[in-house]
Amino acid sequence: MEIGIIGLGKMGLNLALNLVDHNHKVVGYDSHATIEESDFSQVSSIEEMVKELTAPRTFWLMVPAGEITESVIAHLTPLLEEGDSIIDGGNSNYKDTVRRAATLKEQGIYFFDCGTSGGTAGARHGICSMIGGDAEKFKTIEPLLKDISVEDGYLYTGEAGSGHFLKMIHNGIEYGMMQSIAEGFDILNKSQFDFDYEKVAGVWNNGSIISSYLMEMTKNAFSKDAKLDSIKGVMNSSGEGKWTVETALDLNVPAPVITLSLMMRYRSLEDDTFAGKVVAAQRNEFGGHAVEKK
Amino acid sequence: MEIGIIGLGKMGLNLALNLVDHNHKVVGYDSHATIEESDFSQVSSIEEMVKELTAPRTFWLMVPAGEITESVIAHLTPLLEEGDSIIDGGNSNYKDTVRRAATLKEQGIYFFDCGTSGGTAGARHGICSMIGGDAEKFKTIEPLLKDISVEDGYLYTGEAGSGHFLKMIHNGIEYGMMQSIAEGFDILNKSQFDFDYEKVAGVWNNGSIISSYLMEMTKNAFSKDAKLDSIKGVMNSSGEGKWTVETALDLNVPAPVITLSLMMRYRSLEDDTFAGKVVAAQRNEFGGHAVEKK
Amino acid sequence: MEIGIIGLGKMGLNLALNLVDHNHKVVGYDSHATIEESDFSQVSSIEEMVKELTAPRTFWLMVPAGEITESVIAHLTPLLEEGDSIIDGGNSNYKDTVRRAATLKEQGIYFFDCGTSGGTAGARHGICSMIGGDAEKFKTIEPLLKDISVEDGYLYTGEAGSGHFLKMIHNGIEYGMMQSIAEGFDILNKSQFDFDYEKVAGVWNNGSIISSYLMEMTKNAFSKDAKLDSIKGVMNSSGEGKWTVETALDLNVPAPVITLSLMMRYRSLEDDTFAGKVVAAQRNEFGGHAVEKK
Amino acid sequence: MEIGIIGLGKMGLNLALNLVDHNHKVVGYDSHATIEESDFSQVSSIEEMVKELTAPRTFWLMVPAGEITESVIAHLTPLLEEGDSIIDGGNSNYKDTVRRAATLKEQGIYFFDCGTSGGTAGARHGICSMIGGDAEKFKTIEPLLKDISVEDGYLYTGEAGSGHFLKMIHNGIEYGMMQSIAEGFDILNKSQFDFDYEKVAGVWNNGSIISSYLMEMTKNAFSKDAKLDSIKGVMNSSGEGKWTVETALDLNVPAPVITLSLMMRYRSLEDDTFAGKVVAAQRNEFGGHAVEKK
Repeated sequence: MEIGIIGLGKMGLNLALNLVDHNHKVVGYDSHATIEESDFSQVSSIEEMVKELTAPRTFWLMVPAGEITESVIAHLTPLLEEGDSIIDGGNSNYKDTVRRAATLKEQGIYFFDCGTSGGTAGARHGICSMIGGDAEKFKTIEPLLKDISVEDGYLYTGEAGSGHFLKMIHNGIEYGMMQSIAEGFDILNKSQFDFDYEKVAGVWNNGSIISSYLMEMTKNAFSKDAKLDSIKGVMNSSGEGKWTVETALDLNVPAPVITLSLMMRYRSLEDDTFAGKVVAAQRNEFGGHAVEKK
Repeated sequence: MEIGIIGLGKMGLNLALNLVDHNHKVVGYDSHATIEESDFSQVSSIEEMVKELTAPRTFWLMVPAGEITESVIAHLTPLLEEGDSIIDGGNSNYKDTVRRAATLKEQGIYFFDCGTSGGTAGARHGICSMIGGDAEKFKTIEPLLKDISVEDGYLYTGEAGSGHFLKMIHNGIEYGMMQSIAEGFDILNKSQFDFDYEKVAGVWNNGSIISSYLMEMTKNAFSKDAKLDSIKGVMNSSGEGKWTVETALDLNVPAPVITLSLMMRYRSLEDDTFAGKVVAAQRNEFGGHAVEKK
Repeated sequence: MEIGIIGLGKMGLNLALNLVDHNHKVVGYDSHATIEESDFSQVSSIEEMVKELTAPRTFWLMVPAGEITESVIAHLTPLLEEGDSIIDGGNSNYKDTVRRAATLKEQGIYFFDCGTSGGTAGARHGICSMIGGDAEKFKTIEPLLKDISVEDGYLYTGEAGSGHFLKMIHNGIEYGMMQSIAEGFDILNKSQFDFDYEKVAGVWNNGSIISSYLMEMTKNAFSKDAKLDSIKGVMNSSGEGKWTVETALDLNVPAPVITLSLMMRYRSLEDDTFAGKVVAAQRNEFGGHAVEKK
Repeated sequence: MEIGIIGLGKMGLNLALNLVDHNHKVVGYDSHATIEESDFSQVSSIEEMVKELTAPRTFWLMVPAGEITESVIAHLTPLLEEGDSIIDGGNSNYKDTVRRAATLKEQGIYFFDCGTSGGTAGARHGICSMIGGDAEKFKTIEPLLKDISVEDGYLYTGEAGSGHFLKMIHNGIEYGMMQSIAEGFDILNKSQFDFDYEKVAGVWNNGSIISSYLMEMTKNAFSKDAKLDSIKGVMNSSGEGKWTVETALDLNVPAPVITLSLMMRYRSLEDDTFAGKVVAAQRNEFGGHAVEKK
């Protein structure tokens, strides 16, 4: 097939190469830079890309969620013809996706939301993808999904929005799993025993109930820095964990584990907390307990 | 009445003075120091205290829970006669209390456990007390409890152990309430608005549903340091919050709020966490997300 | 002063009576029903209320947050003159308040947001109020706030939105405090001891560190039903706890205690959970652990 | 090698068969029943087993942790000679293990603690094992561990107690991972979209960051009951999650996610909670909010 990829960052570029490997004709565009890469053609504008492709066209957006995705779609849409398809492969909020799909549908444009998992290595060699949008039209782009994904690694999830929704929940689960593993190692680290963490992660990944891709990543990390002495425990987050919690709140679902995973990330961004000061000051007031001065 | 007070720290001394105010004959003893205080007599040994008091004697222990309480009781018991009473006014674990009461009962000694709340000011001017032990014998010491407590501020809680149990739960609730208030102010502090925290705590303490002694303490703290700029948010804890959580676990009670209050205190003791490092390292492995180097 | 009160439900009516007690001239209106109440005049439409009052007018809205507040303001605004004031005394989301205040300001209308605490009894006899809006204009309505509030029970909180924001946080803290108390009693209830909960709440309210208005409410509840045998533990919530959590998320504040208070409420709305089924099914798959069949 | 297996329940029997497959001479004993199984010899008493084996003997205990393990060891020990080894393959508390190893060491008996993961299928065909005890003696039993485990699936963890400690933490992580997955599906289940859960678990297990053994188990569960309609969400637990939390508390480690995973299991054991009643009653007292009557 023929496909235009907008956004050639670490995810988009790897996806492009992945598609080329599977003999698709890729036209790439990135607003920031031209990739020195001869395996697929690159254009210097969205307008050029539209001209380069034959209708009905397929565009894959691999750009940051939010304003940039919004503006790329706004730029692209007026250039399109009925029957063209846009696949948003980024981590957009599913509510935006539902809105965009409805708007584009009125113009005869198909909008697909494709959440992907597997990181940059996955994008290059085989990803896990969850895609929502029009069921009939999906059949025409299914070969693309099949080719870029690992075996049995793509799922048509239903109407537009469902792909990003599922990816969002995937990330929420990921936060919880990561924090679970992290808490376990934190307890090991304060214990009376002397464990080799790389070996621990290794054995846990062979035959145990907690064997997982994330445990493999944990093993890899310890193989490079046995006690992680070189790094700080600052846990950043992109938006999807937060959206998962907000969605849980909207749906009245108690999701304490995913939520606490996120909140411990927030806590890690601060050296000290105002909440801590308030509690310390209260203890001092009623019980005369000493406070630590700055 | 006549009472021997063992332990003249900030709580024990204030309690002694409180009892003197109510015309009780206090004999005080502290293993570390003699208080320069003429309102009650002091002795230089437990043996001397036993001689000084007329049987049936009443002893009030105000010493640290754990080994010290254990050793004071071990020291005191052989000197006693049947019918004497020991009141443990410290924050002992209720399981120790149940054990001690059973042992002492075999020797004809009454053992009461008296949890107290109200801090040092309460000890001096009127405390809240929760006391367990023999119901009949309690009547003989009830006047002491009535006198040292605020109006309607003492409760006979049942068999030995129940007083310390109730005090333990009291402290668990206290942890939860403190953290609730602290989180609220933390959100205020990061908000787009500019609040005067002393005034906020003040107005919340006048007519609102969250008015409370702890809010009053919060107001007092802000009155001395408007943004708590001078202190660090290190939240220490004594053992009772932890015992509350352990008891909840033993009884299969979900107590997430009390538990998280404690765990956020633990978190505040650390500048960085191993758990945080593990999550940061995982993110780096699978997604190439940057880590902060030390 | 002269004031129009729109919304005469349990809060609005009590507030009206409170104002009448303080010799203000109240004009009341409720879209649903006329109150049989002769202490203040009532009108049958918002238009009539506007005519009844002398400019610059003051309106107090005591209607449900959200669509109803929105539509009342939309109805009222075109009837007003420059210099009139609207006080939103309901539990509106502070973001709506910021937006409404900006819009009304363009039309020369002052918009105040007044969060109140103290329940219906407070509305009648003295409330705690937190009010945001124009600082200069506030001076003209300050007498109203002073009169309806308990002593030192009102606070001008700053620009529009800050009053509702502060009330929102107040409710978040309330959720945490309530759950703290509730968990404590839950542990008592499963313990080996036999406590009288009314007496426990009573003694905790006299001299203890956890004495509070909420503990008083707890005592009152137990005085009517000693073990709460007659009711179910279904914990409903209005929106403000949720908004507090969402705001914490927006501001990167870890607020685990307030959040878990809310999530345990959500949990209480369900007899069974899908999450529970998933865990039970997993245990069955990997360990052969029995599941409970429906 | 020659090995005596005490306890032929679902784990012990599968382990025995696994060892037989690897040409070890197994002598089995179970106090409750004789297995109709001709692949290994069985004896009718511990005394008989001791006689059957040649010194230095190796015993593998696969009996319930706690009193039964304690009494089997007490029964077995006096029959042994210096140089014999006992491997506790059950889920004993590591503190018991540390104590037992010290006591047995004085008698010249080696005590190993072997935590295992992988469920009954793992016991049969290849397990993950974590084993602590004497480093030198371990070399003599290492072939057994190698044979029963999957490739690279065993780890010598250090001194006695470390094996059970590591298994305990493994289970804590497992609780957190399971609850993470469960919360994710709970949100899916309340969402506006209509997902096929078996397919979701399937795709998440192919190439995604959350692919894991537990996700595979989740897929299997949904393949048998698409919406888990036939079961109740009652989440039982054995002791190790609780021990993990207690250990976290002892070591001052904040472990909110593992803890909440456990507490949500406790919550699932109850139809209603006393905590919920307290909150509902409080809301009724201060705000007149309706309570649900039983």
